[in-house]
Amino acid sequence: METSSPASSRRTSIGSQRNPDSEEAILSAAEAILREAGLAAFSIEAVARRAKAGKPTIYRWWPSKAALLLDVYHRQKHHGHMPDTGDVRSDLALFVTSLLAFWRDDGGAIFRSLIAEAQSDPAALEALRRYLLERWRQSGAIIQRAQKRGEVRPEIDSDLTIEILSGFAWSRLLTGRLDCSEDEIRAVIDAVVGGIAAR
Amino acid sequence: METSSPASSRRTSIGSQRNPDSEEAILSAAEAILREAGLAAFSIEAVARRAKAGKPTIYRWWPSKAALLLDVYHRQKHHGHMPDTGDVRSDLALFVTSLLAFWRDDGGAIFRSLIAEAQSDPAALEALRRYLLERWRQSGAIIQRAQKRGEVRPEIDSDLTIEILSGFAWSRLLTGRLDCSEDEIRAVIDAVVGGIAAR
Repeated sequence: METSSPASSRRTSIGSQRNPDSEEAILSAAEAILREAGLAAFSIEAVARRAKAGKPTIYRWWPSKAALLLDVYHRQKHHGHMPDTGDVRSDLALFVTSLLAFWRDDGGAIFRSLIAEAQSDPAALEALRRYLLERWRQSGAIIQRAQKRGEVRPEIDSDLTIEILSGFAWSRLLTGRLDCSEDEIRAVIDAVVGGIAAR
Repeated sequence: METSSPASSRRTSIGSQRNPDSEEAILSAAEAILREAGLAAFSIEAVARRAKAGKPTIYRWWPSKAALLLDVYHRQKHHGHMPDTGDVRSDLALFVTSLLAFWRDDGGAIFRSLIAEAQSDPAALEALRRYLLERWRQSGAIIQRAQKRGEVRPEIDSDLTIEILSGFAWSRLLTGRLDCSEDEIRAVIDAVVGGIAAR
């Protein structure tokens, strides 16, 4: 992803400084395990073995499996969460399309399990929530630019609009229905931009 | 819930007939375990012990923990998924409000774990998907009635509209943010009914 890592701000409260080389080795190892063997094979132990790092080191930097998964997820190349075509419908259609496409590739498996982990682990839930609020705020720029252009009403809450579209994408991810047609995506954007009401 | 159980249609392909008394005993036992000890204590074994039923009986009727959870979830009293006030904004606001309220009570814990289970168990995913498609179709009646009244454009997809609102509710549930203000719910309904575009 193109933007600065929200993980780095989470780290400021942790006293121990990360070593960039070890951090890279650990994240690469985690990514390789996920790619080659999937989530079932993913554990702090397996990552430590592959990265030739100590488990305490990993736990010092990532307090839970979910925190490590979140950083791996964030490192994956996902472009298109802040499109800027000059037209709000195109921007929002690109936002949804690229999110679903990213999830159809590697990203979806990691994000599904992050959400699953967060339902039984309060620390994972808190990390996921912080990450998402920051992401929605960033993508909210799509709406704010459209407000400056006069395309979107000034009182509209930009983060909330992004959460509505993102929630639709979650519904598709979490029910295994990522193969969303262009027509369906257009219908979703039409509903949110133009409304469903008779004119 | 007031409507016929989607579970009953799932059962038609299963040869073994359920005994209504045993079924009731098993579902009550499952519900009691969830209420008293939470999901961590929930297993087919624990339900069998409490219901004084054989594990093979339970597995014959519910092929997975998720299938049993889904039936317990469906049995919980959740009113308000098909409000009919004569006004589409009021109906949709009630739909979202009552879903979030139901989840803040007992329903949310079960539904969160159903979604989590479905991310690692393909049979659970399939059961959840079928259940939801049926639910969204039912609640789609809100939109269809509004279309007959001329409030909503005829080309709008009713199920998709419900999925958008439901996706927003999922986002709130799965990030632990069920305390949604009335203003926020109104803003979501405004976006979907009236659109965010400048008029």
